Amino acid sequence: MELRPIGHVESPLVDRDAAPKQGDEGSPEAWLVFDPDVADGIRDIAAGTEIILLTWLDRARRDVLTVHPRGNPNNPMRGVFSTRSPDRPNPIGLHRVEIVSIDGPRFRVRNLEALDGTPILDVKPMLEPIGER
Amino acid sequence: MELRPIGHVESPLVDRDAAPKQGDEGSPEAWLVFDPDVADGIRDIAAGTEIILLTWLDRARRDVLTVHPRGNPNNPMRGVFSTRSPDRPNPIGLHRVEIVSIDGPRFRVRNLEALDGTPILDVKPMLEPIGER
Repeated sequence: MELRPIGHVESPLVDRDAAPKQGDEGSPEAWLVFDPDVADGIRDIAAGTEIILLTWLDRARRDVLTVHPRGNPNNPMRGVFSTRSPDRPNPIGLHRVEIVSIDGPRFRVRNLEALDGTPILDVKPMLEPIGER
Repeated sequence: MELRPIGHVESPLVDRDAAPKQGDEGSPEAWLVFDPDVADGIRDIAAGTEIILLTWLDRARRDVLTVHPRGNPNNPMRGVFSTRSPDRPNPIGLHRVEIVSIDGPRFRVRNLEALDGTPILDVKPMLEPIGER
């Protein structure tokens, strides 16, 4: 169960403590930069759509099972699987982002709170209603 | 970037070709069985709620970048990142499931199309509206 990055994030966000907690809480625009060898996999993704992005939160702690939600010590400790904390046994980031524009393997996106250099693991389309799949 | 399972799926579904394509397309009820060492992480999850489940689709092919969507040869080939195909470089399953009941480390769930024995990687809560986070 070894992951292999398919690209990485380029973002003005470099400091975890200064980054938004969620993508829709004031994230700056960022780039998804895909590796050349997955070009066939991304070829049908269109600008103007929303996608689900999975990342590897490489600055997270993996030995944590309880946290103060949102890093606020006034919030009672909770099991990590009831929170969106990046600190968790498998720190996979789940992001819903909007694609602003596409320039070859570089996708400009909105609503991404991941830090600069974060590895990209996967992209999935939003699911349409059952009848339209 | 090595994953470690935190549990596994128990399901009547054992054959990929016979399983539903998506969780809400007729999946039978299934169990999530968590490992004892993540008990603190799951302690605050409640029955009756919906969660996001991440799994490792261990029977998928990782060398595939284009597929016929829904396995139907009549559908034109598309890049995998525009599809929900399990076959992809990092075969991480993304599932929205409803917890029917909880019995210690065993969670009975609805709407899960993952096959019996599928490793569990992570659980995340659904995000509430911004003002309620």
